[in-house]
Amino acid sequence: MAGMQKPDVILFDVNETLSDLAPMSRHLEGVGAPGDLARAWFAATLRDGIALAAAGAAAPFADIAAGTLRGLLATVELPGGLDAAVEEVLDGFAGLDVHPDVPEGVRALADAGVPLATLSNGATSVAEGLLGRAGILDRFERLLSVEAAGIWKPAPGAYRYGLEQCEVEAGRAMLVAVHPWDIDGASRAGLRTGWLNRDGAPWPGYFRTPDVEVATLPALADEF
Amino acid sequence: MAGMQKPDVILFDVNETLSDLAPMSRHLEGVGAPGDLARAWFAATLRDGIALAAAGAAAPFADIAAGTLRGLLATVELPGGLDAAVEEVLDGFAGLDVHPDVPEGVRALADAGVPLATLSNGATSVAEGLLGRAGILDRFERLLSVEAAGIWKPAPGAYRYGLEQCEVEAGRAMLVAVHPWDIDGASRAGLRTGWLNRDGAPWPGYFRTPDVEVATLPALADEF
Repeated sequence: MAGMQKPDVILFDVNETLSDLAPMSRHLEGVGAPGDLARAWFAATLRDGIALAAAGAAAPFADIAAGTLRGLLATVELPGGLDAAVEEVLDGFAGLDVHPDVPEGVRALADAGVPLATLSNGATSVAEGLLGRAGILDRFERLLSVEAAGIWKPAPGAYRYGLEQCEVEAGRAMLVAVHPWDIDGASRAGLRTGWLNRDGAPWPGYFRTPDVEVATLPALADEF
Repeated sequence: MAGMQKPDVILFDVNETLSDLAPMSRHLEGVGAPGDLARAWFAATLRDGIALAAAGAAAPFADIAAGTLRGLLATVELPGGLDAAVEEVLDGFAGLDVHPDVPEGVRALADAGVPLATLSNGATSVAEGLLGRAGILDRFERLLSVEAAGIWKPAPGAYRYGLEQCEVEAGRAMLVAVHPWDIDGASRAGLRTGWLNRDGAPWPGYFRTPDVEVATLPALADEF
């Protein structure tokens, strides 16, 4: 399929959209914690960061990720102690790699002439390391973090910041993410949206639906 | 310890603050799912509901809880099928009981002359059933839900709604909750705050600190 109007920029979410979180289970097991804590940890980190956004405030992603991890590990017996465990798991997070479909998809989108940028609730340094390790950093025109906006996605101000930096109107930009809450927020802020649904998950009906849904990033490039 | 100024109303959070979520693991296991999905489910429900608040929108708690549960169970092999599993687990949620410390604590606070109310992101019917089963419904002057406010806690409008309904100024009200994000939001909205920390968890430093911290509800009554 092809023929969808090319956006003037694609803003990529980073954590879990570009990065593959699967190894986090192994990192947790490596410090003596249950591997399946990873899912609760990431949901709790987003819950607390987004809660600050709902209350009109903000804190760095790294601080919140460390705090929620500390809370989840507090009741776990850890051979090396809590501080060392938190540090090791966060190091693992900073060293994640992209999903296997990302390099091909990013190259195809860039080759199709679509300007690419990231808009993350995390630090730009994390996105820079991730894309650098994958050899696709040069395909991105900008790496943006909401840290400069003072509010996390999905608050409207976070998307507004991304649009301003790219000098693009909302309706000419597309946000691409795996997280339905990010698609919903971007849609409410006026952006077009692309849902990357790698797991064949059902769409949560309480959120605004995405403009396009794909199972892999190369499939998104085929849309244009 | 005693001597803290009595608030003109205590607004109680309901889910997990008054209700004991521990049986949810059993309900999940009952439909053939891993019991430890419960934590990820509740964190995802709050993440999505609070994300709508950050984006300036809202949906009923029951809809979001059903949607996130459906997403988490989508990849699990369930003997009775997905629809039946979702219904059974949600029935279990609606039939939860209060934590063991709640009846004594609520009676002690009411006997001390502190007006009590609930302010939940969930439906008032859930709070009514919960407190009715525990025999303490008559100690509450009001059961409030943010559904009538059109926005979830921790957005300021949710607390403002609670204060308006109780006809109390922010500084004369106290919010009591187990969730740090709720304490933070209430504090930013000008309320006094009481953190019920049953598990001895560390306080997440990226949130505003509570005015008082107790391990049980009767201990809160001792403060006044």
